[in-house]
Amino acid sequence: MARQRRERGRGALRRERAPSGGLKQLPFRQVRNPYPPMEIASADQIEALHRASLEILRDMGMNFLLPEAREILKRAGAEVTEGDPRVRFDPDLIEESIKSAPPVFTLHARNPAHSLTIGGDVINYCMVGSPPNASDLEGGRRQGNFEDYCNLLRLGQSLNICHLIAGHPVEPTDIPPDLRHLRAISTALKLSDKAMFGYSLGRRRILDVIEMLRLVRGLSEKELTQQTSLFTIINANSPLQYDVPMLWGMIEMARTNQAIVVTPFTLAGAMAPVTLAGALAQQNAEALAGIAFCQIVNPGCPVIYGGFTSNVDMKTGAPAFGTPEYSKAVLVGGQLARRYRVPYRSSNVNASNHPDVQSAYESMNSIWATALGHTNMVKHALGWLEGGLCASFEKVIIDAEMLQEMSEFLLPLEIDDATLGLEAIRDVGPGGHYFGTAHTLERYETAFYDPILSDWRNFETWSEAGSIDATWRAHRIYKEVLADYQEPPMDPGIREALDDFVERRIAEGGASAED
Amino acid sequence: MARQRRERGRGALRRERAPSGGLKQLPFRQVRNPYPPMEIASADQIEALHRASLEILRDMGMNFLLPEAREILKRAGAEVTEGDPRVRFDPDLIEESIKSAPPVFTLHARNPAHSLTIGGDVINYCMVGSPPNASDLEGGRRQGNFEDYCNLLRLGQSLNICHLIAGHPVEPTDIPPDLRHLRAISTALKLSDKAMFGYSLGRRRILDVIEMLRLVRGLSEKELTQQTSLFTIINANSPLQYDVPMLWGMIEMARTNQAIVVTPFTLAGAMAPVTLAGALAQQNAEALAGIAFCQIVNPGCPVIYGGFTSNVDMKTGAPAFGTPEYSKAVLVGGQLARRYRVPYRSSNVNASNHPDVQSAYESMNSIWATALGHTNMVKHALGWLEGGLCASFEKVIIDAEMLQEMSEFLLPLEIDDATLGLEAIRDVGPGGHYFGTAHTLERYETAFYDPILSDWRNFETWSEAGSIDATWRAHRIYKEVLADYQEPPMDPGIREALDDFVERRIAEGGASAED
Repeated sequence: MARQRRERGRGALRRERAPSGGLKQLPFRQVRNPYPPMEIASADQIEALHRASLEILRDMGMNFLLPEAREILKRAGAEVTEGDPRVRFDPDLIEESIKSAPPVFTLHARNPAHSLTIGGDVINYCMVGSPPNASDLEGGRRQGNFEDYCNLLRLGQSLNICHLIAGHPVEPTDIPPDLRHLRAISTALKLSDKAMFGYSLGRRRILDVIEMLRLVRGLSEKELTQQTSLFTIINANSPLQYDVPMLWGMIEMARTNQAIVVTPFTLAGAMAPVTLAGALAQQNAEALAGIAFCQIVNPGCPVIYGGFTSNVDMKTGAPAFGTPEYSKAVLVGGQLARRYRVPYRSSNVNASNHPDVQSAYESMNSIWATALGHTNMVKHALGWLEGGLCASFEKVIIDAEMLQEMSEFLLPLEIDDATLGLEAIRDVGPGGHYFGTAHTLERYETAFYDPILSDWRNFETWSEAGSIDATWRAHRIYKEVLADYQEPPMDPGIREALDDFVERRIAEGGASAED
Repeated sequence: MARQRRERGRGALRRERAPSGGLKQLPFRQVRNPYPPMEIASADQIEALHRASLEILRDMGMNFLLPEAREILKRAGAEVTEGDPRVRFDPDLIEESIKSAPPVFTLHARNPAHSLTIGGDVINYCMVGSPPNASDLEGGRRQGNFEDYCNLLRLGQSLNICHLIAGHPVEPTDIPPDLRHLRAISTALKLSDKAMFGYSLGRRRILDVIEMLRLVRGLSEKELTQQTSLFTIINANSPLQYDVPMLWGMIEMARTNQAIVVTPFTLAGAMAPVTLAGALAQQNAEALAGIAFCQIVNPGCPVIYGGFTSNVDMKTGAPAFGTPEYSKAVLVGGQLARRYRVPYRSSNVNASNHPDVQSAYESMNSIWATALGHTNMVKHALGWLEGGLCASFEKVIIDAEMLQEMSEFLLPLEIDDATLGLEAIRDVGPGGHYFGTAHTLERYETAFYDPILSDWRNFETWSEAGSIDATWRAHRIYKEVLADYQEPPMDPGIREALDDFVERRIAEGGASAED
């Protein structure tokens, strides 16, 4: 689809408006990095990380806390001792198992125009996921609630550079935990028609979400296994451990052929060695074990290699994000994922407490590294703050601008006789200017990126207009986008089926992590 | 030198402090990008730009407004008509002339430890140059003055990531124009011992600055021609024109073998075609003509290919910087410079009116593009605001942080048995943590980049400390750096010779652009 849109020409691209609002933004399209990925690790270094990971899995192994998971692994040939959570893997078992993972797959959204290619040189940007708090400049920071949850979803739906809804954009903590997946995901499915996410927080819960997706996409159970329509994040409980709810998530998502992003949580100095090499070796071991497990459950099911390696501030133990070490880890993670021929996930992160310049430059380090490293799924691309403890409404807009800029930067250069414009250069001549030339007039409306947040007026004009800095402008913009939001249409029959299911499951008491 | 420092190990690097103050920062070293440059234009596209440029110079030519310059070019074989400023170049004349430009040279500072390699994969960061205004959060925006001029120089001297003083960091408009180069540069030479700049604003003025550098470096006239100790920026008066003061600068700097940065001022849509291809073709034509002229004046003199192509906002005519188009132009400019085997200059730019998130993300686009494109000299790297109309004290600190992060990102990854840390991973085991391990304790003080501006404390601690955002923290830091500033030593005999020269030339009335 990206190619079709591009062929329609840049003029066509620019004149489009968001279908759901008045914000002048780039149209929805998949972003591609047409250049070779940046590789900062040598081939030898990648092999050293690979071998170290296999050694970890062979000698130390990983804890799989769910007996059913250990049983599956034992049958596949892993070394499992009765009553011991530890599972050790022969290197061949890992290498053979991961081979069945597809390098590219389609993630279907309920609106087919929003379905996504995951893999190759395609970069997809996700809405922020899972912060316990939300903030905006006017209302300050508050505990996650359903109203903010809905409004953040509306922003994610309205902003074309947001490709996926990827977890609760803020935790709606005013919904009881056992009902939350039902209320929150059914609401998300109504407020947005983009590709959707479910949490692996227990077997029953992920089964409920899978069923909601099946209903919303109007598929039979068999059809659902043929059309990946949902993804989940599996975090290793690093170091070297998968817990019970996550393992149920892997099993049920793999069985139904839904997408599984396996992301170790390897903060160097805390849950992983203080060295980047050690943290990456551990990340790789945990990711390989998780991917191998999914492929053993259902060979060929779609998986994504997740990298989240960063470091902690050794003075305070606080996590640091968007640092030089983080950028390096993003790039090496991409090299490892490509070695295994699976799609790659990393994130747009920062550790600032405010949507200030720190949040912007740490995010920009992330955005450049994720693009250069061919990250196929960039989690937390819009709205992350405080190392993930807060969803910021203004940061959503700031990120949208930065991501749009990256998507424009990645459009290939056009050099031909028309764009070289030698005739215009001849006509203008030394000391002239190009404002009024035909070459300019034909192109000026669509020649350059048109920002949503940046203000390029001169100081005097900007001052007369109130000297509003970019974060406050983002505040104004997010409110305008919300005011313009339109709910995407949903077939009434599907809506009824979804509501019936949700109400029935709520009447049954929902589900806990142990169900 | 970079290599020597690196061999001393990261521990040694981190424990150093700025010699002139208490700020905990990275030591002075040259930054290298050890990875291949990012190339977004194909070889065919580069050749198309090259051929278009030669066609422009052959068919349209450029105005050289100084008769003496035209005489030099005529003798070299260019097509010059008596009484006409236009000079046309045979492609062979351009291609032959530029061959003598050195690919790498040393720019000597008065402190030898601050001398710089210009070329190859080395990236040098310059202090902001030439804004007519300065600002800080407390004092607001004010017309350039000598006090701010001195304070910005003190920041440039104190911050190790600043490699060069590159123009007046703000215009000291309270010094009369005819005396300004004497007062301003002699002051800069006392306040900083880093590599130095002179403006090409007339023959007599640049000769005065060359003489001040000779005195300060304690060299004979002949020795000066053997040791490049000064650089200047030559801006084409785009499109396709070099004016009289700039041409005198080129002639006198080339004759004394000092470094000349030839930078066309090609804002697409204003002084260059509205298309990036056209603007780059024109940039390349103007740069090649300037470089060829310098090499004709003195074959082998050090020159730098300068790129400044960006675009104007077609709604307002205001220049836009740090945009997707700008990043592309930076990368293609680097490809062109490497094609001609000359060092490359571009800039860290933004068009924001405030040191806010816009200033940060536009700068970050610039910083990544300049690093990926192997920019050997990054002008305006610290302190630029408002598209160059203002020097911001806070932005100096924000930039220093962003540049330090880039310099750290570019340090190669270390992967060996010690950094892989398999023993530590074994000792910690599943579910443990690495805070207290020997592997961590041996490395924690120097393992990660230690920021000067970023605040990674949690929200509660940050709030209790006053919720100070990064721009206000930068304000506090710049004042601390100024309070800690120490003037670098200067030999009393040299100081006297410099003062004598300046006072004599001031008594003579200084120099105008026409002298």
